Amino acid sequence: MATHEAIAAETAAMRRAIALAARGLGHTSPNPVVGCVVLDAAGQPVGEGWHQRAGGPHAEVHALRAAGERARGGIAVVTLEPCDHTGRTPPCSRALVEAGIARVVYAVADPTAQATGGAATLAAAGIDTAGGLLAEQAAAGNEAWLTSMRTGRPFVLWKYAATLDGRIAAADGTSRWITSPEARADVHRLRAEADAIVVGSGTARLDDPQLAARLAQGDVDQPLRVVVDTRAVVVRPGARVLDGTAPTLIAVAEDADTWHLDGLARVLRLPPGPRGHGLDIPALLAALHAQGVRSVLLEGGPTLAGAFIAAGLMDKVVGYLAPVLLGAGPAALADAGITTIGRALRLSVTDTARIGPDLRITAVPQRQATPTTTQES
Amino acid sequence: MATHEAIAAETAAMRRAIALAARGLGHTSPNPVVGCVVLDAAGQPVGEGWHQRAGGPHAEVHALRAAGERARGGIAVVTLEPCDHTGRTPPCSRALVEAGIARVVYAVADPTAQATGGAATLAAAGIDTAGGLLAEQAAAGNEAWLTSMRTGRPFVLWKYAATLDGRIAAADGTSRWITSPEARADVHRLRAEADAIVVGSGTARLDDPQLAARLAQGDVDQPLRVVVDTRAVVVRPGARVLDGTAPTLIAVAEDADTWHLDGLARVLRLPPGPRGHGLDIPALLAALHAQGVRSVLLEGGPTLAGAFIAAGLMDKVVGYLAPVLLGAGPAALADAGITTIGRALRLSVTDTARIGPDLRITAVPQRQATPTTTQES
Repeated sequence: MATHEAIAAETAAMRRAIALAARGLGHTSPNPVVGCVVLDAAGQPVGEGWHQRAGGPHAEVHALRAAGERARGGIAVVTLEPCDHTGRTPPCSRALVEAGIARVVYAVADPTAQATGGAATLAAAGIDTAGGLLAEQAAAGNEAWLTSMRTGRPFVLWKYAATLDGRIAAADGTSRWITSPEARADVHRLRAEADAIVVGSGTARLDDPQLAARLAQGDVDQPLRVVVDTRAVVVRPGARVLDGTAPTLIAVAEDADTWHLDGLARVLRLPPGPRGHGLDIPALLAALHAQGVRSVLLEGGPTLAGAFIAAGLMDKVVGYLAPVLLGAGPAALADAGITTIGRALRLSVTDTARIGPDLRITAVPQRQATPTTTQES
Repeated sequence: MATHEAIAAETAAMRRAIALAARGLGHTSPNPVVGCVVLDAAGQPVGEGWHQRAGGPHAEVHALRAAGERARGGIAVVTLEPCDHTGRTPPCSRALVEAGIARVVYAVADPTAQATGGAATLAAAGIDTAGGLLAEQAAAGNEAWLTSMRTGRPFVLWKYAATLDGRIAAADGTSRWITSPEARADVHRLRAEADAIVVGSGTARLDDPQLAARLAQGDVDQPLRVVVDTRAVVVRPGARVLDGTAPTLIAVAEDADTWHLDGLARVLRLPPGPRGHGLDIPALLAALHAQGVRSVLLEGGPTLAGAFIAAGLMDKVVGYLAPVLLGAGPAALADAGITTIGRALRLSVTDTARIGPDLRITAVPQRQATPTTTQES
């Protein structure tokens, strides 16, 4: 192929690989999502695949299998640097060599100590290897995993739904429904992509949520349901979050009485938070990370969100704003330790969308480097 | 001209006329904004104009003057039904007849008792007359005047600037700056288009605002500055709102002591509001309307906005949302008499825009028919 054609073919293949990778969201933790497209020697796509679930074949293996002999002399285009270690599956670097791949193009370098080195191994085997193609887009698709690799804790996405004047409920506590069915369906997509959903005791008491992910189509691995119930007094037998449809974890204080949860939920005992209030949020995230949770959807309420933000543990916010005014009622965010405008948490808007009659605003804290900048090769 | 060409030429001319009309915003009250394009007999634009200020020539007269003899046998395309009465200027219907216009196309019928009838007069004079072309867009451009004609009070646009969590200031009252310079410049455009700016005593006390309209380019007729200062204790000599750069009106209770305002501002005495709190907002708007004010920009604060909304006197809201989180501080909207979700004020989003780093959301109450539906001919 001529150079321009080759670049165009590889770029198109990488876009497709990024789209394929996204199909794995919610299914692959503690692994990343990965997509792969194999081009034959003439630059034509002959196989594609994605990492479908932890323990299953990697994206490259799926794509090589689909390509078969047509992979020989071809190009593997993959969203993440191919792994170089034997875990539950053999290293992808070896599979690529054995398939006779002539060139490997990847987007994002693998930051993990155990898996990294794939590019070097490929190069040593005589394979032409290049990294960085569409690295920013590929990193965005893998933001939860990359953030958890960088920080050693799960990626935290805070979701809230509020009125234009920032209320999550009316003065009498009623809140069904502020946002539209379309916005609520969008939240189910966020849930399906998360490894765990976290709510506080106030939300558990007011809403008695089931915290299930329901999609109109596609499989869902139900996320772990986590309720921060410091005194272990809110989540009682009969609560919808204890309905057995997904695992549930109740985070409580070290001295909380939890006999009523025996056999209904796992109990996680945590030290107190700052100034003795609530629970230690970093310890909660560390415990979840140790269990393989790489992404947390924080669904509220305002007190728990404030504790996460005060601890600097919020990576992204998705706000659903309904064109509704209340003038009274609780705000979306309570005490985050910010008392003056100069200490405000400033963010950058990364996306806005109309979701039915509502608006969805996505933003990331400005103080935090995006994963991309540390992952580009 | 062939029919399709004629329709295309008239539609293009109407779009231009609507854009011309907008140049009058902030300058024409108590009159509407109006734009006019004159096409010659061949359908070519030969003159255009807009109503530049109350007491000055109407749009049609400007456009006819520009067209001169080329208007004869031509088409006048105008955003509002030409007037049929002699006020400070002669009726436009006569000017169109005398210029030899063969056809008049207007967008919105004139709803006023004194000016209406222009279309009938034109038709009686043998001029082919048609209404309704781009009526919705033209009505949107004239929404303040049309609303004031329909309701007998000024159009009320509520503007607020808040964080993503709905705060207008931090816990310690600091608020400079939540929104960006770009958003603040956009607010000056809103001010320049308004006949009056209204704030409450809390805003006057906290911000000591000048309430001036400053534009990077273009003339500004400074809007009337109105402070609702029930007890007449907040606006004192030396306040920026009394700086003499524009007229100022202080709305006070009937028994308030206002000697300190003598010579510095006009004083408007009003009866108390519901349950004895504040002032009677309908009476305030009636007094402003009687003075020729057709559009009010309500800039806050939350208490006054709540009183307007509780009284059902808010026609449109423009919210500037900064990607900032505070977790504490006053909300954009205080008590509007809404205590439960079923009584929430539901709106429809009519526009969203990125203004620098901020978002601007425009919405209108759902319960209110848009002016368009009553104005289309």
